[in-house]
Amino acid sequence: MAEGQGDYRILHEAALRDYLAEQPDLVTLLGAEPVSWSITEVGDGNLNLVFIVKGDRGGVAVKQALPYVRLVGESWPLPLSRAHYEYLSLSKQAQLAPGLVPALRHHNEALALTVMELLEPHIIMRKGMVAGTQYPRFVDDITTFMARTLFFTSDLALSAAEKKQGIAAFAGNHALCKITEDLIFTDPYRIAEQNRWTAPYLDALAADLRDDMDLHVAISRLKLKFMASPEALLHGDLHTGSIMVTDSQTRVIDPEFAFYGPMGFDVGAVLANLLMAYFASAGHERLPGERRAFEAWVLETVEQVWTEFARKFLDLWRAGAAGDAYPASLFAGEKGAARLEAERQAYMQRLFADTVGFAAAKTIRRIFGLAHNIDFELIEDPKRRAISEARAVRLARAMMLEAGAFPTIADVTGAARKLRDWQPEFAAG
Amino acid sequence: MAEGQGDYRILHEAALRDYLAEQPDLVTLLGAEPVSWSITEVGDGNLNLVFIVKGDRGGVAVKQALPYVRLVGESWPLPLSRAHYEYLSLSKQAQLAPGLVPALRHHNEALALTVMELLEPHIIMRKGMVAGTQYPRFVDDITTFMARTLFFTSDLALSAAEKKQGIAAFAGNHALCKITEDLIFTDPYRIAEQNRWTAPYLDALAADLRDDMDLHVAISRLKLKFMASPEALLHGDLHTGSIMVTDSQTRVIDPEFAFYGPMGFDVGAVLANLLMAYFASAGHERLPGERRAFEAWVLETVEQVWTEFARKFLDLWRAGAAGDAYPASLFAGEKGAARLEAERQAYMQRLFADTVGFAAAKTIRRIFGLAHNIDFELIEDPKRRAISEARAVRLARAMMLEAGAFPTIADVTGAARKLRDWQPEFAAG
Repeated sequence: MAEGQGDYRILHEAALRDYLAEQPDLVTLLGAEPVSWSITEVGDGNLNLVFIVKGDRGGVAVKQALPYVRLVGESWPLPLSRAHYEYLSLSKQAQLAPGLVPALRHHNEALALTVMELLEPHIIMRKGMVAGTQYPRFVDDITTFMARTLFFTSDLALSAAEKKQGIAAFAGNHALCKITEDLIFTDPYRIAEQNRWTAPYLDALAADLRDDMDLHVAISRLKLKFMASPEALLHGDLHTGSIMVTDSQTRVIDPEFAFYGPMGFDVGAVLANLLMAYFASAGHERLPGERRAFEAWVLETVEQVWTEFARKFLDLWRAGAAGDAYPASLFAGEKGAARLEAERQAYMQRLFADTVGFAAAKTIRRIFGLAHNIDFELIEDPKRRAISEARAVRLARAMMLEAGAFPTIADVTGAARKLRDWQPEFAAG
Repeated sequence: MAEGQGDYRILHEAALRDYLAEQPDLVTLLGAEPVSWSITEVGDGNLNLVFIVKGDRGGVAVKQALPYVRLVGESWPLPLSRAHYEYLSLSKQAQLAPGLVPALRHHNEALALTVMELLEPHIIMRKGMVAGTQYPRFVDDITTFMARTLFFTSDLALSAAEKKQGIAAFAGNHALCKITEDLIFTDPYRIAEQNRWTAPYLDALAADLRDDMDLHVAISRLKLKFMASPEALLHGDLHTGSIMVTDSQTRVIDPEFAFYGPMGFDVGAVLANLLMAYFASAGHERLPGERRAFEAWVLETVEQVWTEFARKFLDLWRAGAAGDAYPASLFAGEKGAARLEAERQAYMQRLFADTVGFAAAKTIRRIFGLAHNIDFELIEDPKRRAISEARAVRLARAMMLEAGAFPTIADVTGAARKLRDWQPEFAAG
């Protein structure tokens, strides 16, 4: 891949204005007076610069990759090529799940820069959930997004040759995969400088994670699956901070971690982040029980995300899978159709087991690893925060270690419901 | 990958002589009088031209890919790039398992031509086994080859980035993978023009294979694993026709099907071809029981191939795995070491289950698909041949459908032993 890093330069406000002014399509979109455009840096993610640019006719979002991790600084270099993979996956998602990702307006490979539709008045879903907002479109939109992007890039829909080309096209994004491999699948289970947690309350739990060898085997199996199971083109970072919402719209953003991996990683990411919002909710109460309706909606959403995803994925498969896996010619006739349908159910059961495991991994990393989330972080009182976190961790450990105890999504939400008022005992509390 | 197909031409004897005469290193090796070199076409495989070239100082083997499947003709085109992948994998194997593959002397990408060490007096192992010959070096050599090539290209030995680069480097070899996907994992289980079997004796069994939906699910799961489980760099066609032997040497040849796939496919290929030699043996008897010692050696070899492979693979893992899977930092101390060792055993158990399934698939395709093998084909009497084949198929079906019935390799050889004198009933017999 030609990275053209030689031409790379960081575009701050003035340079960005000059650059955009040279793109006729963008000038048409924004308005003819570049000098009057407002340009605001709004990046609150961990990796990139993000600008909102507004003119008298319209606005765009501009994302530029930095050659290092923004959260940490130049000491942690990160290849600019991630902008290429983000552009590539965003293009694919736009094709497979139209209307569920921001529209692409412009891309410059050398500058690692992408210009996209400005999402307004969308907000980051995680922020809305901290405030206790329900999103009625979310289930339908996210399950359409996942079912279509995962199914149509899998062996069920593609020839083996097409699939291998896709895998190869994203193989170069290994630096972003490595972040996941380290921060999700390794560091929370060992001493690592970047780990942090709500001390002193969770100190004993953190020590326990480092000491539990069954957990280390379970997380290592998940890590190996993450590294070596290219089932479909994943978003790769599908948490509620990568989803922008209004009452009536859902947009999935930021697929720079995209690669061919296990489907359960994306589905598990959505479920984990909903479950964390659920457990965090009690910590955001000002009056006991005031967020019960929100919490009920979250658990209902957890259930529906899985059931609707599974239903849509199966419908796509039934509607005529053109891929090389499970060839139609081997399942002809009534008997074949019945046997294939049973196998489809078994396939989804295996995918559900993966999903449960990955959801657990995604939860634990947000409580003991480098990158935390505002669901918990905005609970100001550390003990209240630790209580919410301990509940989430207790569920996550069970999900990782006792996969057999969670044969259905109702078993997951049932366990979550039971933990809503569980009072952990903190040695240091 | 630059294929340079523009410069490709098929080199028959005269053109080949002229070409080799222009390569100073080869002239040194063969002898200074190109006109006196003997050049003989000996290719008995399905895909390529193979020449043996001998001069007064030495000899070489020359392999040139044809732009179509030799067995079928120009109606079945096949990319020349397979010579590139063969060269790439042979180089890797030579580095990982020195002395167990033919030494490389010369490669021309544009001509899809590779010059290798002449293996003399080695013969194709399958031919020796038809004759009832035992190979005392085989177990040690093939298990070293498999353990080292598979381990050192797996996530246990490589970083995820290196592994992804390897996967991408072989992703273009999909046309060769497709042959396997069709001929092994699909066609024998459906009506396909190229299928053939020992009719009329096996007609009912062939119909049964097309009708058994449990088998279709089992073969489809194996196919999906073959397509989407890049565990290690496989040889990809590791049958006894790809192995050349003497009493004291073993060389693995012809890795043009190489790609990153499931390890059990290579190990299963070796076991399946030994088991077929075992079942074919009765068909080659001139006096009842005259090959019993050979047959006992074959079954002992089957057991040792698995146990020695597993032992060597585990030893490499224990000796210090540098890969990103199962990181040492998660298994520190005595407790960690013990738990990791238990997981290693579980890993090998999963690999054994895969191996059993792939061995079954490799057996069935040789009896009902396009490409048969001389183990059975050289049994002249069709009914005797069908009896041997039916025994092999009965074991293979059990191995594919009842994986749980074969927890150890002794269960496989035990079942084979019991079938040695089983008399199938042929409706048409």
